[in-house]
Amino acid sequence: MTDVKNIIDGIFSGSKVPLAKAITIIENDLAGKKQLLKEIYKNTGKAYRVGITGPPGAGKSTLTNQIIKLLSSHNYKVGVIAVDPTSPFTGGALLGDRIRMSESALLENVFIRSMATRGSLGGLSKSTSDVCDVLDASGKDFILVETVGVGQTELDIAGTADTTIVTLVPESGDSVQTLKAGLMEIADIFVVNKSDRQGADNIASSLRNIIHLKPESEDKWDIKVLKTIASENEGIEELLKEIKRHQRHLTKSGFLDIKRKHHLRNKVKELVNESLKVNFWNEENEKYLNENMEKIGFKLKDPYTLADEISARKFSI
Amino acid sequence: MTDVKNIIDGIFSGSKVPLAKAITIIENDLAGKKQLLKEIYKNTGKAYRVGITGPPGAGKSTLTNQIIKLLSSHNYKVGVIAVDPTSPFTGGALLGDRIRMSESALLENVFIRSMATRGSLGGLSKSTSDVCDVLDASGKDFILVETVGVGQTELDIAGTADTTIVTLVPESGDSVQTLKAGLMEIADIFVVNKSDRQGADNIASSLRNIIHLKPESEDKWDIKVLKTIASENEGIEELLKEIKRHQRHLTKSGFLDIKRKHHLRNKVKELVNESLKVNFWNEENEKYLNENMEKIGFKLKDPYTLADEISARKFSI
Repeated sequence: MTDVKNIIDGIFSGSKVPLAKAITIIENDLAGKKQLLKEIYKNTGKAYRVGITGPPGAGKSTLTNQIIKLLSSHNYKVGVIAVDPTSPFTGGALLGDRIRMSESALLENVFIRSMATRGSLGGLSKSTSDVCDVLDASGKDFILVETVGVGQTELDIAGTADTTIVTLVPESGDSVQTLKAGLMEIADIFVVNKSDRQGADNIASSLRNIIHLKPESEDKWDIKVLKTIASENEGIEELLKEIKRHQRHLTKSGFLDIKRKHHLRNKVKELVNESLKVNFWNEENEKYLNENMEKIGFKLKDPYTLADEISARKFSI
Repeated sequence: MTDVKNIIDGIFSGSKVPLAKAITIIENDLAGKKQLLKEIYKNTGKAYRVGITGPPGAGKSTLTNQIIKLLSSHNYKVGVIAVDPTSPFTGGALLGDRIRMSESALLENVFIRSMATRGSLGGLSKSTSDVCDVLDASGKDFILVETVGVGQTELDIAGTADTTIVTLVPESGDSVQTLKAGLMEIADIFVVNKSDRQGADNIASSLRNIIHLKPESEDKWDIKVLKTIASENEGIEELLKEIKRHQRHLTKSGFLDIKRKHHLRNKVKELVNESLKVNFWNEENEKYLNENMEKIGFKLKDPYTLADEISARKFSI
């Protein structure tokens, strides 16, 4: 535990090694994790959190990399989490994309961490938000979380980010109408990347039409559609301006506080729900479930009656 | 409640109207839902459940429609659930795709139901599996569940299907390497649809390579990659043969029982977990959470400590 104390002090001083150690503790759920997160919490809240998501092949890594370089050149301290939804078969096929980003990792004021999901997406959301907290406590000005829009991750990213950027490419055009409800719901900024390709204007105007149909949000933010060519570093300055415009909008309107409190409230609820489950499914209740599965199999009992019975058991613990 | 009794009798007789009523009860969580599900359970287990998933634009609806027609022509009774991840902005853009399918709905031995997610994907998985049970109890031979690979849905589909078909198109080729971990994990059969387009052989062989890298599954099923052109009705007979080959494989090896028991066990656990949450978050505990969010905001308390405190409250209820 004294080790954790040292790590915490190291985080506050902004050094990279303790930061890396802390993230490893969080990622692998090692001893000291809770103490670490409890103690750094008071130092969080200063960094501005930007989520970058979108379908595979949208160029999110390249885009993120350009944003990192731009922020770094303005002397901002930048923390980056690249969430890699590793295929359980190949064990990490996205590595190529990360190589470009690792050059930026050599910059003094940039810290980049790749996190793999290893098939299970469930635990990732909590870890990502915990790692954001650690980066935040280490004195970063901006935290970028980049993740492919896979499974639940794009909703989780919006559950921790102040600004969420949804990145698409002209090729996404055909399916904009059928675009994931989730992606549409979470975007604060739309980026059409690789916008030198055919169809860029089409998809941009389709997106604007869809945005137009959306009922005005509570905070009255007007979602813009920007065009970038990340590989040529085109449109990145405009994107950063738009991020800052959103930041100002949220800050002035008071919605930044509301949004962050909302995220924190969800986090507390999830922690509680998780601990309810863990506490409930002890050996005894698992055994009761397993014994009764035979009856379910033979149709002597139905799943709903069994669930009622098991739920009632919690009062007798 | 006598109404529910009538509906249940109607389901067992295989008529369409009570079936539709029952699904409405489930979808909208109306009174009588639990009684209905409890009472029909003993009549489930006879239908073979096939899930069809994949990215937007893969032609899943057309493919599903051809499978329906083929099954129907063989005099099988077919139930279909088309899960429509409605965009919260447009309120259901996929309608066009459904029109073709609705022709099949006129067939005597086919029952088709569209279910919309309305933004929230969470509740859908449970409803889908409940609706499968109702279709099953109504005497269907095959139940097809078609859903776009969005959010959690493709994992949920595998959590209720006996055979899961993952549909891709040649255009998916670029991103096969970065394909959703989830999709790779759940496929019993891969279909490359629109296989007259360029790149079909490439993606098929990429898929075979990835399958080859995968450690052998417990039930020793060899996943095949089939090519179809659903719009021309090409490859559908071969696909049905492959579905039946999988069905025989699962039945003979005893893994059908194991798989179904596994699904049921997860279902009971989820029902219990849901009721734990609902019971726990009563007015009193919500109030405690809300009161303490102020302290969290002012950094007087951290979220982890608050979650511990709240979790401990359950013992004092």
